Amino acid sequence: MSRISSLSHPANAGDRAGNFAAVRALSEGLVAPLSEADATLQSMEDASPAKWHLAHTTWFWETFLLRDHAPGYTLYDERWPFVFNSYYEAEGERIDRFSRGMLSRPTLSDLLDWRAHVDAAMVSLLDREDLAPLIDIGLAHEQQHQELLLTDIKHALFQNPLGPAMWDSPPPPAVHTGERGWHRHPGGIARVGHLTGGFAFDNEGPAHRKLFEPFALADRLVTNGEWTEFIADGGYAAARLWLSDGWGWVRDHGITAPLYWRDDEQFTHAGWQSRDPHVPVTHISYYEADAFATWAGFRLPTECEWEVIARGTQGEVAAHDPAAGNQLDRAHAPMPKGGTDLFGDCWQFTRSAYLPYPRFQPAEGAVGEYNGKFMSGQFVLKGASCATPRGHSRASYRNFFYPHQRWQFTGLRLAKDLP
Amino acid sequence: MSRISSLSHPANAGDRAGNFAAVRALSEGLVAPLSEADATLQSMEDASPAKWHLAHTTWFWETFLLRDHAPGYTLYDERWPFVFNSYYEAEGERIDRFSRGMLSRPTLSDLLDWRAHVDAAMVSLLDREDLAPLIDIGLAHEQQHQELLLTDIKHALFQNPLGPAMWDSPPPPAVHTGERGWHRHPGGIARVGHLTGGFAFDNEGPAHRKLFEPFALADRLVTNGEWTEFIADGGYAAARLWLSDGWGWVRDHGITAPLYWRDDEQFTHAGWQSRDPHVPVTHISYYEADAFATWAGFRLPTECEWEVIARGTQGEVAAHDPAAGNQLDRAHAPMPKGGTDLFGDCWQFTRSAYLPYPRFQPAEGAVGEYNGKFMSGQFVLKGASCATPRGHSRASYRNFFYPHQRWQFTGLRLAKDLP
Amino acid sequence: MSRISSLSHPANAGDRAGNFAAVRALSEGLVAPLSEADATLQSMEDASPAKWHLAHTTWFWETFLLRDHAPGYTLYDERWPFVFNSYYEAEGERIDRFSRGMLSRPTLSDLLDWRAHVDAAMVSLLDREDLAPLIDIGLAHEQQHQELLLTDIKHALFQNPLGPAMWDSPPPPAVHTGERGWHRHPGGIARVGHLTGGFAFDNEGPAHRKLFEPFALADRLVTNGEWTEFIADGGYAAARLWLSDGWGWVRDHGITAPLYWRDDEQFTHAGWQSRDPHVPVTHISYYEADAFATWAGFRLPTECEWEVIARGTQGEVAAHDPAAGNQLDRAHAPMPKGGTDLFGDCWQFTRSAYLPYPRFQPAEGAVGEYNGKFMSGQFVLKGASCATPRGHSRASYRNFFYPHQRWQFTGLRLAKDLP
Amino acid sequence: MSRISSLSHPANAGDRAGNFAAVRALSEGLVAPLSEADATLQSMEDASPAKWHLAHTTWFWETFLLRDHAPGYTLYDERWPFVFNSYYEAEGERIDRFSRGMLSRPTLSDLLDWRAHVDAAMVSLLDREDLAPLIDIGLAHEQQHQELLLTDIKHALFQNPLGPAMWDSPPPPAVHTGERGWHRHPGGIARVGHLTGGFAFDNEGPAHRKLFEPFALADRLVTNGEWTEFIADGGYAAARLWLSDGWGWVRDHGITAPLYWRDDEQFTHAGWQSRDPHVPVTHISYYEADAFATWAGFRLPTECEWEVIARGTQGEVAAHDPAAGNQLDRAHAPMPKGGTDLFGDCWQFTRSAYLPYPRFQPAEGAVGEYNGKFMSGQFVLKGASCATPRGHSRASYRNFFYPHQRWQFTGLRLAKDLP
Repeated sequence: MSRISSLSHPANAGDRAGNFAAVRALSEGLVAPLSEADATLQSMEDASPAKWHLAHTTWFWETFLLRDHAPGYTLYDERWPFVFNSYYEAEGERIDRFSRGMLSRPTLSDLLDWRAHVDAAMVSLLDREDLAPLIDIGLAHEQQHQELLLTDIKHALFQNPLGPAMWDSPPPPAVHTGERGWHRHPGGIARVGHLTGGFAFDNEGPAHRKLFEPFALADRLVTNGEWTEFIADGGYAAARLWLSDGWGWVRDHGITAPLYWRDDEQFTHAGWQSRDPHVPVTHISYYEADAFATWAGFRLPTECEWEVIARGTQGEVAAHDPAAGNQLDRAHAPMPKGGTDLFGDCWQFTRSAYLPYPRFQPAEGAVGEYNGKFMSGQFVLKGASCATPRGHSRASYRNFFYPHQRWQFTGLRLAKDLP
Repeated sequence: MSRISSLSHPANAGDRAGNFAAVRALSEGLVAPLSEADATLQSMEDASPAKWHLAHTTWFWETFLLRDHAPGYTLYDERWPFVFNSYYEAEGERIDRFSRGMLSRPTLSDLLDWRAHVDAAMVSLLDREDLAPLIDIGLAHEQQHQELLLTDIKHALFQNPLGPAMWDSPPPPAVHTGERGWHRHPGGIARVGHLTGGFAFDNEGPAHRKLFEPFALADRLVTNGEWTEFIADGGYAAARLWLSDGWGWVRDHGITAPLYWRDDEQFTHAGWQSRDPHVPVTHISYYEADAFATWAGFRLPTECEWEVIARGTQGEVAAHDPAAGNQLDRAHAPMPKGGTDLFGDCWQFTRSAYLPYPRFQPAEGAVGEYNGKFMSGQFVLKGASCATPRGHSRASYRNFFYPHQRWQFTGLRLAKDLP
Repeated sequence: MSRISSLSHPANAGDRAGNFAAVRALSEGLVAPLSEADATLQSMEDASPAKWHLAHTTWFWETFLLRDHAPGYTLYDERWPFVFNSYYEAEGERIDRFSRGMLSRPTLSDLLDWRAHVDAAMVSLLDREDLAPLIDIGLAHEQQHQELLLTDIKHALFQNPLGPAMWDSPPPPAVHTGERGWHRHPGGIARVGHLTGGFAFDNEGPAHRKLFEPFALADRLVTNGEWTEFIADGGYAAARLWLSDGWGWVRDHGITAPLYWRDDEQFTHAGWQSRDPHVPVTHISYYEADAFATWAGFRLPTECEWEVIARGTQGEVAAHDPAAGNQLDRAHAPMPKGGTDLFGDCWQFTRSAYLPYPRFQPAEGAVGEYNGKFMSGQFVLKGASCATPRGHSRASYRNFFYPHQRWQFTGLRLAKDLP
Repeated sequence: MSRISSLSHPANAGDRAGNFAAVRALSEGLVAPLSEADATLQSMEDASPAKWHLAHTTWFWETFLLRDHAPGYTLYDERWPFVFNSYYEAEGERIDRFSRGMLSRPTLSDLLDWRAHVDAAMVSLLDREDLAPLIDIGLAHEQQHQELLLTDIKHALFQNPLGPAMWDSPPPPAVHTGERGWHRHPGGIARVGHLTGGFAFDNEGPAHRKLFEPFALADRLVTNGEWTEFIADGGYAAARLWLSDGWGWVRDHGITAPLYWRDDEQFTHAGWQSRDPHVPVTHISYYEADAFATWAGFRLPTECEWEVIARGTQGEVAAHDPAAGNQLDRAHAPMPKGGTDLFGDCWQFTRSAYLPYPRFQPAEGAVGEYNGKFMSGQFVLKGASCATPRGHSRASYRNFFYPHQRWQFTGLRLAKDLP
């Protein structure tokens, strides 16, 4: 998912210093329950250590803001950019294959010192209007890494046979929704993509017209209980339900349930917990989502179908209310709780491949280099999960993952054609 | 690529017996220059031995026509369906992982006897109107395997350090086209997908409306000479030109040129031949096509853009004139020769992922099972190559391959946005 | 196993021309039942196609005899040495990784022509006394490849789900031996290694003294029936019986029986045949042999223990009587038949790693380059199998394979300490 | 290397409690310079985290002493044996494939508490004569893990591009030895294996007679400077110098120097340090040692040759003087310093495969289960390294590793035949 891009237009310029402080503080809050060793773990190539996320986001501010725009600024440690740079080829050679999981040094304490140093230096830049676009990108970038930090550490703790918890908080009470209802759409032409003045990544534009046939989108997510029926009905053993690549994946990896399931339990940031049948299923792959939809007699929505419903029911700006929706903060483990919102429980797979919008132009330079770069082999997800920072997502947001990946809070909202 | 599907409407019913005889004879003509050992080779998992193609297509007729519809027909050898069935899970369990390249038995002669037996038995079914749709599928299926047979054996012979030739015929004289011109399209709404009465695979439908922005499609393919400039300019070493997955592929496999290139030569069905700078480049991956387009300052077309230009310039029905366009027959090695036709030189990558059209419904049963099954991770190619049997393709045809595959005659036609 | 080396002393000089003709004819006789396609198959990296064995042995004669010693000889085809050379780095660069299984050309007929050409040219060299050592190596080398040809083609045909037979001949009647008896040895000092005047590979020398403790060697091989008891007793599931590497191999590959076993059948050169409990078990790995011996309360012999018993019971020269012992010829499939001979049923694992004898010196030059080269990671096997050409083995012969390999006719003769 | 076995006879019974305290304290001293995160790192499957070594050795005492012999003892945490057990299949099922590198919990502090608890409980058992053999094994076992802890953490820190140091101490001054001299042996029969009354692992016995030919063993180790000459002479590019498996390893992994070399530096526990040409080369594989010996015109010794020289020059008991020889303690990084001792600089490869001595019988039960288990594919090393705890080794000691492994302090002492 990680990527950086140009933005459209700065929003909330007046709050920029406050936003900066809040975002930076949240990152540090998220690692507060972790030990030095927890924060160093890397469980797979797709994931990074918590410490690395703290450092990489700081590298961003130091490189693209302080180095380039703060007169006289010198790097805190000139060896660190090499280690904490990620995929920005334009920013210079990176070592070919060192494992981020071997970075016991610098220590967590060293990195927190670096963060404080950079935060102090940033103060002088936060009110420069010419830097506002870059700063907004930096904030969005750090928020993306906050979600990755949470899903990566969950995956790492899961590897431990002792099943350690990061938070002791119990899961929030689930919202017990009833029968599945439908948001109906009559078809026709509508505009999609980034429409308003707020911040957006370059891949959300240009806004453009799209033709729709009549369709409907479910008003709630598929639940753990429904998934249990799918399993009981032999869903993981029925080749005819699966995409060809998906069936190969199921057999090669012996997949028989969503990630993190064990008997009637589920691994969470609060350790192993009993599984509530009423909350949305999470940690499924695209292949699983597609097979379930086929089994259920429905289909996945396209990304544009999802988007027009989101706008229609929840509006463009308020789509993902920063003041509500998910419980991510320093004191609680992120857990989906169900309900009818399109945002805040889990990312929802669409059947749309992640491809450029018509007339898409990647931004220039290293900062904007990398959204277009991922436009093969991945699928778009819409919404926001319980681990997405409040206010980070919107109707036009395009998240993307490979069809086999499932360590994010990924779920499924069904769709169907209307006559 | 291999897939089978429902059809729309039978065409040329009067010629069905003649078509059957011609298609069956062409398959056998294609293997005439091969030895028993050549016909047994399998060079990679994506490819199959020539003998297997001969047998698999025969299995199709025996299974879906003779077994199901010819009263009293008994299988020629009841152990063979297990071996020559391909991906039709609905037709029963297949062995997990035997290598088709180990099938020295049955012999080529055994298989030709089987073909003759099946052809004789088929005579009584060829004029049954109720079977016409199935027969048309069988013909299209066998034509697809003719192209695969040719590209698979080319890949197998290429593995031999001695560089053996299958045909001695020299490559045809190239058509030296001039400067790149453009087919322009003003944008607006147009219908795409299978529109007319002829045969089509299920993935070409349903026909539907599509919104276009103004764009242009090049009137000729990118040539070997242009590709040489790309290489000379460091195209394979410039990370910024490549998709992220493509760059990984380039580095993991040490890619520095199209498949089959060596110095100023190119491996062909007629062995190693000098490379003509004026003919279309072939045997490139999606990743390479995309990087080239970026380097050249253009982009790949979408599948629908390609289709509306094909209809506009060449018409729906005559799009791929069976009486012209490519030189595939028993006496000549398939080689692209250039020119301005959209069909007949090579398959052209589009930037469209291979996904279902709106309201797509896979056909019922084993025959129609498998088009939808491949709808993840692949890209659509349009046109037809010099190895495509005459009359097999059309404007709505959707070929598809993974972005790293390049053993087909794959090439590139540039596109650009218009104001 | 394939390797070449210096020899001690030529034997049977008078018969050299006759031996040459007989050995060369046997190679061609072995491929007589094979089709062009059979002869091209390569089922794994350890194996080579039958055609390649025919060609590689011919390359040996052409290179080390004709090229180096026949005045005016020109290579039959100068591109072929590159393709049919094997591991002789000293003979020039070889291509890094082409698959021998892709060599449909040259054809079998081309290669037989080459063989005839080389055989004719060899006539003038066969009575040159200075070349006798090289010729004896060439004969031993071709005999080794005869055995590999047989075991490689068996492995290739086994991959075919149709289970084709190479020979129709039924297995020979088994010799039903009774209770296991023992060859006892009182311990002390004995000489081992190549002692007499006949041909031997360099790794069989120098002859040297060895200290023995009292021990006994079984007078017959372990049988299929005994192996079935091992399986029934949970032998493949009991970690404590296995070497650590062996247990890893069992689990990684899901091993539950010797290679080529299926229900109560066994794959042979004559296809699937019912398995005789009275004949020696074959196609087992070192790991399996060691686990069985542990289970049975015995151990494997050392290579020197085996050798001194072989000398004591059967003599040095007559150890492997050319006129008896195994049934390898053009008309019969090789099958172990049991009995009390140390030679001729199967190769017998010893617990001795394949290492240099004291004061071992590899021979100079390409011909003698490669026995020492394999002296890590492999174990010594003694005896000779039903697929070993008559007269090829002897008491001092050291065959060697990796502990996981089992496509040879490998079996097991138990040993024990005596007080 | 890790293994446990029966012992011969307890030594220094009077000091057992003191030894116990000293050994336990040393383990903790070794991790004192490590952070919580350092101690959690696992850089490869062959290595384990420092924390795991601390825990695994404690698990040994708790399981085989306290659980089995201390009345009323209850496990400190009943979930931990599952996590800190290693290869003792007899002690119950272990999880199939969890990565030890993911064990951020229990924390280092948790584990030190466990150690203290176990140490306190052990007091009552340390003077029980019946347990002396088990205790001596426990001490030897913990000493082995001390060396592994040091070599494993070195390998882990090496992965970090920042090259962190664990100790700041500079390397000790090297001993500059002169020309290579030789220990000569006249040949004949000698006894080898564990002869005296002290502790020994089961694989060192039974003592037995061995026949020797006259030979000589170098009186010092091969140095960094000599290795540089080997490199300069193209040693890593000359196929003829290498074992076949070794040459494959060199090419597959692009090996061009010993592990930890970079330009004229070498990675050490004290970070990157300049490389002294006069000290022994270390961190080489068997393949490299063998190729060097071939290049130099010598050979590797056998394990018995090394042993008889060690006895002759240094005596059995005092072979590895606890009061001298290496500098391993809490304050200094282990570094070879050269000299003429057979012990204390690095482990020395022999050309002997690790196989059972005649009449070897593995000890009964879980404690003694595992020496025989490793007797395939590995080579014996003799001596002791700068990271071996003082007093741990002896002339009969048999260390063993696979021929490609080189993260231990492994080096090379040449041998040659005498007339």
